[in-house]
Amino acid sequence: MTTPTLPRDDRAIDFWFDFSSPYGYFAAQSIDALAARYGRDVRWHAILLGVIFKATGARPLSDVPLKGAYVLYDWQRISRLTGIEYHQPSSLPISSVAAARAFLFARNRDPALAKRVARALYRAYFVEQREIQEPAVVVDVCEREGLPRAEVEQALGDERIKQALRDEVAQAEACGVFGSPFIVADGEPYFGWDRLPMLEAALARRSSLSQ
Amino acid sequence: MTTPTLPRDDRAIDFWFDFSSPYGYFAAQSIDALAARYGRDVRWHAILLGVIFKATGARPLSDVPLKGAYVLYDWQRISRLTGIEYHQPSSLPISSVAAARAFLFARNRDPALAKRVARALYRAYFVEQREIQEPAVVVDVCEREGLPRAEVEQALGDERIKQALRDEVAQAEACGVFGSPFIVADGEPYFGWDRLPMLEAALARRSSLSQ
Repeated sequence: MTTPTLPRDDRAIDFWFDFSSPYGYFAAQSIDALAARYGRDVRWHAILLGVIFKATGARPLSDVPLKGAYVLYDWQRISRLTGIEYHQPSSLPISSVAAARAFLFARNRDPALAKRVARALYRAYFVEQREIQEPAVVVDVCEREGLPRAEVEQALGDERIKQALRDEVAQAEACGVFGSPFIVADGEPYFGWDRLPMLEAALARRSSLSQ
Repeated sequence: MTTPTLPRDDRAIDFWFDFSSPYGYFAAQSIDALAARYGRDVRWHAILLGVIFKATGARPLSDVPLKGAYVLYDWQRISRLTGIEYHQPSSLPISSVAAARAFLFARNRDPALAKRVARALYRAYFVEQREIQEPAVVVDVCEREGLPRAEVEQALGDERIKQALRDEVAQAEACGVFGSPFIVADGEPYFGWDRLPMLEAALARRSSLSQ
């Protein structure tokens, strides 16, 4: 696969997700622990699938006839099999712009804090049935994670944050990202929650080779 | 998931595939052995994704920007991890009408023979680089599996076989099938080669419950 901008010589793993993506939510619960088992860090990247789908012509899963019904079933099944809580949001997909901007704001401060914020936003949407398309809800969730309310409110309208998100999405596209979750490790791309076992196998193989 | 026509009270497993589908090819290599470990039979159904995609608005994987490049990579990776031979056909997708008709003709005679024919057609396309969109190639492959050449030639243009294939595709859509491979076991739908471990887990659970 020719993806010139993949960070090939880099031990960190890149993880792209959209806050409106159930499969992204499931992957977000285990990706860091999985990577840590092999001494690897994960860089999280919030993207806007709506923008990417405009380029690829794809549609949200829920809107595809027959597939829309299937994925509702699949998400409940993954929840049952993994024990990860999941409640179908009343509206999906939603605009994840505010959540993604808040994530980037948090990441500028501290990548570890940003991951906590991301998990809290995902939990708000997929467990607590909160409407994270609403900036006010995003601000609440960020405040709960320790971010100053006024600063988050300001950041959501900050032109530098807006531009940072546009850059993040453009970089994702340059890396071949077309869906959520999307992972690149050691130059190898993995699309979908169901590719995590393959990612783990590859990390294990590489880890055993280096010992 | 509301799929009224799924055969809920039936121990047989239904397996839908398109002859032009690499993930269908991979699933076809292991589905029968997987089911047999739990004393279950598999009914194979050849479908035409082109027809189904017209209804759902989906496009062939290879034609989706970025995703097209990814799946090329993914198919090689699955081949490497599973040890199943795979050579990227020069043309994909292709029309699988002739192959599907030959399969139905064989299935009318003997479902076990039809599975051998299907595996041989898949092998011709994904290993031997033969153009199974060509009726002459399909006839050759069928003959190799013991079917009389003249009868296969006649069947490919037979109105009853044509209608049987239309019925097969319509039944697949009624069962919620939107891609290949698609499996239904005990009323539960599984889309994609990567759902085989979930299928196996469900069969194992049910098998242990009934003991």
